Amino acid sequence: MSESTHHEMWEKLNMDLEAHDGLLEVLGKFYGDIYLSQENRLKGAEYLDFVLSEVHGLRIKELQDAKAQGRKVVGTFCVFVPEEITLAADAIHVGLCAGAEAGSELAEQLVPRNTCALIKSFIGFKMAKLCPYIESSDMIVGETTCDGKKKAYEAFNEIAPTYVMEVPQTKSEAARDLWKSEVLRYMKAVEELTGVTITAEKLKEGIKVINGKRRALQRLTRLRAASPAPISGRDALLVNQISFYDDPVRFTAKINELCDELEARIETGDGVAPADTPRLMLSGCPMAVPNWKLPYVVESSGAVIVGEESCIGTRNSRDLVDESGETLEAMIDAIADRYMKIDCACFTPNQERLDNITSLAKDLKADGVIHYSLLFCQPYSHESMKVDKALQVEGIPMLSIETDYSMEDVEQLKTRIEAFVETLA
Amino acid sequence: MSESTHHEMWEKLNMDLEAHDGLLEVLGKFYGDIYLSQENRLKGAEYLDFVLSEVHGLRIKELQDAKAQGRKVVGTFCVFVPEEITLAADAIHVGLCAGAEAGSELAEQLVPRNTCALIKSFIGFKMAKLCPYIESSDMIVGETTCDGKKKAYEAFNEIAPTYVMEVPQTKSEAARDLWKSEVLRYMKAVEELTGVTITAEKLKEGIKVINGKRRALQRLTRLRAASPAPISGRDALLVNQISFYDDPVRFTAKINELCDELEARIETGDGVAPADTPRLMLSGCPMAVPNWKLPYVVESSGAVIVGEESCIGTRNSRDLVDESGETLEAMIDAIADRYMKIDCACFTPNQERLDNITSLAKDLKADGVIHYSLLFCQPYSHESMKVDKALQVEGIPMLSIETDYSMEDVEQLKTRIEAFVETLA
Ligand code: SF4
Ligand code: SF4
Ligand code: SF4
Ligand code: SF4
Repeated sequence: MSESTHHEMWEKLNMDLEAHDGLLEVLGKFYGDIYLSQENRLKGAEYLDFVLSEVHGLRIKELQDAKAQGRKVVGTFCVFVPEEITLAADAIHVGLCAGAEAGSELAEQLVPRNTCALIKSFIGFKMAKLCPYIESSDMIVGETTCDGKKKAYEAFNEIAPTYVMEVPQTKSEAARDLWKSEVLRYMKAVEELTGVTITAEKLKEGIKVINGKRRALQRLTRLRAASPAPISGRDALLVNQISFYDDPVRFTAKINELCDELEARIETGDGVAPADTPRLMLSGCPMAVPNWKLPYVVESSGAVIVGEESCIGTRNSRDLVDESGETLEAMIDAIADRYMKIDCACFTPNQERLDNITSLAKDLKADGVIHYSLLFCQPYSHESMKVDKALQVEGIPMLSIETDYSMEDVEQLKTRIEAFVETLA
Repeated sequence: MSESTHHEMWEKLNMDLEAHDGLLEVLGKFYGDIYLSQENRLKGAEYLDFVLSEVHGLRIKELQDAKAQGRKVVGTFCVFVPEEITLAADAIHVGLCAGAEAGSELAEQLVPRNTCALIKSFIGFKMAKLCPYIESSDMIVGETTCDGKKKAYEAFNEIAPTYVMEVPQTKSEAARDLWKSEVLRYMKAVEELTGVTITAEKLKEGIKVINGKRRALQRLTRLRAASPAPISGRDALLVNQISFYDDPVRFTAKINELCDELEARIETGDGVAPADTPRLMLSGCPMAVPNWKLPYVVESSGAVIVGEESCIGTRNSRDLVDESGETLEAMIDAIADRYMKIDCACFTPNQERLDNITSLAKDLKADGVIHYSLLFCQPYSHESMKVDKALQVEGIPMLSIETDYSMEDVEQLKTRIEAFVETLA
């Protein structure tokens, strides 16, 4: 990641320059080992490499420039916050989930030890002054999904004021009413933040742009059904990760280009691994940048990853907002309906997720599934047991992994995953 | 606990007689050590001893007799399930939370290892066929409070069909609407279960009875402000625990008698410990029967407990349902409003709880507070940090304890609590 040219900007953002330089150095090396070392990589990966190398640099500069022109930045931690609405108010929507251990010890001053790594990471990044996205955000939006985040936002709110949306816990009609009222409340809050009145025209455009992004990601998902696998799981994860940071229009164009390249590869039977490589699907908790540990271990264990059933994956691209609405009211309804389809483990019951996992695994011709839960993540740990049963019925083997962001268990994970992959070969 | 005479009944309830006999034996000894060994105990404690000794015996026989006459039994895990409505349908409302380790290993087949002891206990009790209340229940009601329970009910539902109420996560108007609709849905479900139509008259009576129970418990709470403490924390906890099992009318009468006795004691300055004994308040997760570990350790460490800020304590008795409503609609509103006042850690934000804790600690003249979280309970672990800060402002020292149902840490707890008590003396 580029260090030299952005120091002044980071200093203005009140970041800890020394610690941040250290972080960038570690990440740069990590990225080199995990990404740049891949063979037969796509040409389109240049875009990924560039965005990632400038994720704390040029992209932050873009945000700062936009802010200088009066636009606002909204930071989020969950795919439940409707990006269409943010866009309709001319604001920029970014993800704040963090995937590194830096700052996690500090975070234990504010949240219990038994908290998942993702939560500790975003709190730690704020406390250690390491995240230029948090510092660039004019509004930070949390949600009542899991207990861990719901309660962590209370503590986080004291160091970074956080607006919280109530996500319901069931999919009843009354729950959907609550959610719609929260969507409306969010719309008003964003209008207040930006001073922009959201019109039907603006919202229609927001819906179109974000659906476009989702369509590009859906296209990528479909192409990965090909054998040999045309793209590594690491690169596909990076695409999904970058979708939370880069400008949605540029991102969509670039990913469609990448898909063109994939189609050409598929045509010639060119892949990132031989056709007989065991194909695995990942399923579970989101993997935020730079959490590449598990994909790296999996793809160093003789398997290739063909899909990610997670919020930094298909859960965020599977459903589109219905585009037929012409009035604000109809569009808000369409948005509320689309988001109520999200099959997050925070819902009860959540049979949809089991159905989606089995059908996705079959579509992608996965030989097996690795279910990934962050340690102390109760919703996904519970569902891991149910996913296993559902996949058993379909004859698809599953391995359940519970881990965090530390590197201590890498060897142990490798042993378990190699053994699992061997049973599939 | 009486074993001999109830075997036939337990066998009909499909319980594991041998394992259950073993459990009763251990509990009987445990009760003797913790309860019967107390000096200068109240005469009214005879009621407590009797109910507890027959909690799996005579009380279950009463339930079976009622069932034989066509009444239904509703089992619950949370104070959010409106007992007034259960009563208005002539059904019997019992608590199913469990406070013993028996069966917990079995439970790990259905829920993750990192699940709180209370959840593992009720699932384990069902799996090990140890709980006559679960087996007597015609309807089991869960709720979406914490992630642990919300997801555990999905697994539990497969071995014991469970109706789930959605408890919202904030106290907004929209959240209150959702809750009201859930109260109405519960009313219909209970009517369907019992075949009884809930009339305004019946509901008014239900409200009166349950408010009466709460008033008796409020009276007990108030009397404990006296110095020397007129009742031990163990006995007061038992009163609260029994409130979830015994018939509410009988319970209310008995607790009012007990309060008369306390008043007489206070009059003569008679207490369970010298007036200069450090007074502690417990705060946090509910302690279900027979979870008496912490109160026992505290009261063996030179302190006396003067209050329990928990759902098996003041959180369940503090607020009454407004009795002025005459129509069903008005009463349902009053019920919805009363339950929305519950300051469970599952809500965000939950400033009420901090306010309630500090004012209760002052009312009870507590010298310190012990905050108790079950291991892996995220809502209460998070709030523990906030409670500490709120009490610091008031100059009230707090000790944070995180534990489970095992006896392994008793010595360690004793050391920590004795050290804490010494700082207060
Ligand atoms: S997993 Fe659930 S809580 Fe996490 S980002 Fe996805 S929808 Fe939100
Ligand atoms: S990984 Fe699990 S515990 Fe962590 S924020 Fe996501 S849903 Fe919550
Ligand atoms: S602590 Fe919360 S979840 Fe537990 S019984 Fe009380 S209200 Fe229900
Ligand atoms: S103790 Fe905590 S984790 Fe356990 S059931 Fe109660 S609120 Fe849930």
